[in-house]
Amino acid sequence: MKLLEPITINGMKVPNRVMVPAMVTRLSGEDGFVSPAISNRYVRYAQGEVGLIVVEAMAIHGSNAGPLLRISDDKFVPGLRDMVRRIHDTSDSKVVPQIIHFLKIARSGWRQTVDMLTIEEIDRIIQQFGEAAARAREAGFDGIELHNAHAYTLASFVSRVNARTDEYGGSTLESRLRLIGKVMDSVRRHVGRDFPVGIRYLSDEFVRGGYTVEDAKLIGLRMSQLGFDYLSLSVGGKFEDAVHTPGHVLHGYSGYSGERCMPGATYPDALHVPYAAEIKAFIASKGFDVPVIAAGKLSDPATAEAQLAAGKVDMVAIARGLLADPDWVKKVRQGQLDRIVKCDYCNVCKQLDGAHMPVTCFLWPKGAMQAPTDAGPDVKPPAWPEGGAGLTLRFEKGSVSLKWKKALGAAYYDVYRADDGGAARLVDGVKLPVLSDAAVLGGVHYRYFVRACDTSGNAGAASEPVQFIPPAPDPGQQTDAVSTA
Amino acid sequence: MKLLEPITINGMKVPNRVMVPAMVTRLSGEDGFVSPAISNRYVRYAQGEVGLIVVEAMAIHGSNAGPLLRISDDKFVPGLRDMVRRIHDTSDSKVVPQIIHFLKIARSGWRQTVDMLTIEEIDRIIQQFGEAAARAREAGFDGIELHNAHAYTLASFVSRVNARTDEYGGSTLESRLRLIGKVMDSVRRHVGRDFPVGIRYLSDEFVRGGYTVEDAKLIGLRMSQLGFDYLSLSVGGKFEDAVHTPGHVLHGYSGYSGERCMPGATYPDALHVPYAAEIKAFIASKGFDVPVIAAGKLSDPATAEAQLAAGKVDMVAIARGLLADPDWVKKVRQGQLDRIVKCDYCNVCKQLDGAHMPVTCFLWPKGAMQAPTDAGPDVKPPAWPEGGAGLTLRFEKGSVSLKWKKALGAAYYDVYRADDGGAARLVDGVKLPVLSDAAVLGGVHYRYFVRACDTSGNAGAASEPVQFIPPAPDPGQQTDAVSTA
Repeated sequence: MKLLEPITINGMKVPNRVMVPAMVTRLSGEDGFVSPAISNRYVRYAQGEVGLIVVEAMAIHGSNAGPLLRISDDKFVPGLRDMVRRIHDTSDSKVVPQIIHFLKIARSGWRQTVDMLTIEEIDRIIQQFGEAAARAREAGFDGIELHNAHAYTLASFVSRVNARTDEYGGSTLESRLRLIGKVMDSVRRHVGRDFPVGIRYLSDEFVRGGYTVEDAKLIGLRMSQLGFDYLSLSVGGKFEDAVHTPGHVLHGYSGYSGERCMPGATYPDALHVPYAAEIKAFIASKGFDVPVIAAGKLSDPATAEAQLAAGKVDMVAIARGLLADPDWVKKVRQGQLDRIVKCDYCNVCKQLDGAHMPVTCFLWPKGAMQAPTDAGPDVKPPAWPEGGAGLTLRFEKGSVSLKWKKALGAAYYDVYRADDGGAARLVDGVKLPVLSDAAVLGGVHYRYFVRACDTSGNAGAASEPVQFIPPAPDPGQQTDAVSTA
Repeated sequence: MKLLEPITINGMKVPNRVMVPAMVTRLSGEDGFVSPAISNRYVRYAQGEVGLIVVEAMAIHGSNAGPLLRISDDKFVPGLRDMVRRIHDTSDSKVVPQIIHFLKIARSGWRQTVDMLTIEEIDRIIQQFGEAAARAREAGFDGIELHNAHAYTLASFVSRVNARTDEYGGSTLESRLRLIGKVMDSVRRHVGRDFPVGIRYLSDEFVRGGYTVEDAKLIGLRMSQLGFDYLSLSVGGKFEDAVHTPGHVLHGYSGYSGERCMPGATYPDALHVPYAAEIKAFIASKGFDVPVIAAGKLSDPATAEAQLAAGKVDMVAIARGLLADPDWVKKVRQGQLDRIVKCDYCNVCKQLDGAHMPVTCFLWPKGAMQAPTDAGPDVKPPAWPEGGAGLTLRFEKGSVSLKWKKALGAAYYDVYRADDGGAARLVDGVKLPVLSDAAVLGGVHYRYFVRACDTSGNAGAASEPVQFIPPAPDPGQQTDAVSTA
C-alpha cells in the first residue's frame, strides 16, 4: 500500500505518506506558549502514527492575535522543545512547525495590506522568518514549513492581487516572488541546507483577479529552484472575498475562497488533487522531484491511496479526517478501515474556528477537547436492541426522513446510502437516531442502512436496509401537445 | 475529425459539433425587435458554417432591460422569422433562440429574488415560457434553448441558495427542480415532442453555498428525465457575488463567479470540460444519451477536437473564439487553422458588455460592428519590411518587453512564446508592435516570435525569433549557512 510507504525528505525519514496539515486549535494561551492541551493534541497524532505532523501556524512576530502559538522569541523554545520531545518519544512520526507572518486586522473590517509595508518592515519580516526557523531547529523539530498560503503575508505577496508597485509588487511574477526568495535565503542562512524546509502555498486563489494553476506551476518551479524540500498545496482562504461580520475581525475562511479551502459535504472528494498533479508533472518536466502534497477531502483511505498509486502526489494531507480520528493511519496499517471515525465534512470544526472557539470534532463525545483514546478492536461494538434497528423511511416534499432505534453503547451513527445498486457511501454521521436527506432525486433507487459506532469508531452491525425510489417525472405524460407548427 | 461530424438532436440535423452559445450583443433596439445589425451578426455565423447557432437570450416577458431581444409577444415573430430565414438561406447551420426570464434589478443595488415571487407570478412564468416556445417554433427556429443558467430566474430556483421555503424552495433538490419541470411541461404542451428543446444550466455555481458538480449530475439526470434534447453547460455568473458599482444595475459577471463564467487569459484551456464529462458519464450510467455540451476556453481547434475525440462531450460551445472569428468552423474544415483569428481571452468583449456597450472583438478593425468578411486564403498576407521584423527583447524588473517593426497590411500581431523548447503558444494578439510579458520566470528558456495578420486572420511569415533565459536564483549561493543545530 503506497499510503504506508516511507518517504525521505532532505534526510527526514517520514514513516508513511500521510500528513496532518497545519490546523488551528485555539488551545494555546493568549501568551503564545505551548499549553498541555495543545501538546496533547499533537502527541495524539503521534500515537496514531501520522507520518508528518505539521503543528499549527506559530507567529514569527509579536502582533496581537488571540490564542496563537508563538516562535517569535527564544522564551518560547523550551515549551516547543518539550512538545517535540513528547511527540518523538511516542512514535516515528516526524514533526515540523508551520511558521507564519500575518498583517493587522481590526474589528472595524479594516485590514493592513502588503502595499502598506515599508521596505524596512519587509526586511524585518525576512529577518524574523530566519530567526524563527533557527528557533524551530533549536527546539528539536525535524524541519519547518513556511506558511505561504491563504490570507497571510507571504501568500499576499505571491498573489496576483498584490497591489504594490515596487520590486515586491504585483506587476510581474518575479516581483511577487521576490519576498519568498529573500525569506528562503534568510531561513537557509539560519538553519543550513541539511534541515528540511517545506512550503505551503495555493494551487488556485479562487478569488476574482487571483492566480490559477497556471501561475501555481511556475510558483512551484520557483519554490523548487529555491531549494524547498516539499510543496504542500492548499487553495483559497483569502481575505479578498471574506465576509465581514460587524464587530468581529475578518475571518479568512468566510468567503467563497474559504469554502473551497475547507470544502464541505456538497463538494466532490479529492477535488484539488488535479492541480497538485499538474504542478508535480510540471516541475518534473523541469528536472525537479520535490515531493508534492495535496489536501482537500482525502480522508477516504481508498481515495487517498488511489491518488498516491497513480503518482499524482507524493503525500496526502488530511486535516479534518485526522481531527475526527487521529488513529487513521494506525487503523489503515492494521487493516481496520471499518473502525475509522469517518469525517462527514459537516464543518463544525470550521465553524468553531470562525467563532474563535477551541476546535474540536462534532463526532467526539460532547465536551471532549481531544479525540478519545482508542479502545482497540477487541471492544464489543454497539449493538442494536433486540429486534434490530427498526430503520424506517418517510418521504415528504422531496426529503427522505430516516428514523431508527438507539443502539447500546453508541456514540454516533454512520448513515450510508447506495444509489441504483452502486457502492454504499457515507451520507452523514449523526448523534441522534434521525436523519433527513434532501438531496434525493425521483427515479433513482436508494438503499439506506445505519451503523452504530462507539467513540473509537468501532462500528456495529449494519441495520436492515430500507429501499426507496422517489417518483420521477414522466415526459410521456406530456404528449397531448398542441403543436403550433 | 470529430469536430466536423454531424449530430442529430431530436430530428435537428446539426452539420458539425460546434455551437456558438448565447452571447449578448447589445445590438437590438430597446423595443426588442430584431435589428439589421443583430440579424447580420447571426447570419455571419451561418456564413462561417457554425453547426448550431444559439441566438442571444430573448425575454419571454415585458420587463425593462435596455437593448434586449423579445419573444414576449406575437408582434416579435415576423422579425425573428426574417432572421431565421436569412440564416437558413445562408448555410446548413441550425439556429435556436435562448429564451429567458429574469427578475428585477435596480440601480440602487436592490434586486428581486425568487423568494419574493408569489405562486401566481410563478404560474405566469410557466405560461410565458410555453408561449415563447410556441412563438419560436412559429418563427421557424429549429428548436429552442431554455436559459436555466447564471443569474436568471430558472437558475435561481435550481440554485442551492434559493431562499424560498415552499414547494419551490431551496430545502430539497426536488423543490428546487419543481419549476423547471413545470416549465418543460408547459413548453412541450406548446411545441410538442418533435421540437428540439435544449437547456443551458450550470455545472458549478462557484458561489459560497452554491451547488457543485455533485448536484449538477443529479440536475442533468432530471433534465434528461424531463426530455430535454441537449444539456449545454456553463458555470458561475451569479448575482450573489456580483460587485455593485453605485448608480449602475448589478452586472452578473462582475464577481468571481462571473470571472469563472468567462475565464480570461490567466485560466487554463478547457477548464470546465471535466465537469461536463462527469455529468455525461453519470447520465449515461442511468441510461440517457442526451448530448452534453461544454464551454470555456475551447477555441483552440486541437483542444476542442481532443475533448470530442475522448468522448468527454458531444459538442463544444465556443463563444469568444467565434466572436473573434465566425469563420472558425469553415477554416477548420478547409484545414486553414493558421488563418483563424485567435481569441487571446483579453475579455474586451466582456468589458463592453459590463459597460452596456455593443459587444465587439478587440481584434476586429477599429470601429467595426461585425467580423470582417473573409478575404480568403489567396490574399497576400502582411509582409515584414525589408530586413525583417527586427524583433527585439528587453528584460527589466521581471518583465519582458518586445518590440518589432510594423508589417504592411497588418491588422494585428499574434505573439507566440515557446518555453524550454516546448510548443509555441499564443501569448497575446496586439494592434501596436509592442508587448510586455510579466509572467516569465527565471531559469526558463523563452523563445518568442511574432506573426502579422490581416483582418481575416491571414498570418504572414513568423519573425526571426528572440530567445532569452531570465536569471534564476541559485540556492547553492546560500551554503554559507550558520546552522544553529
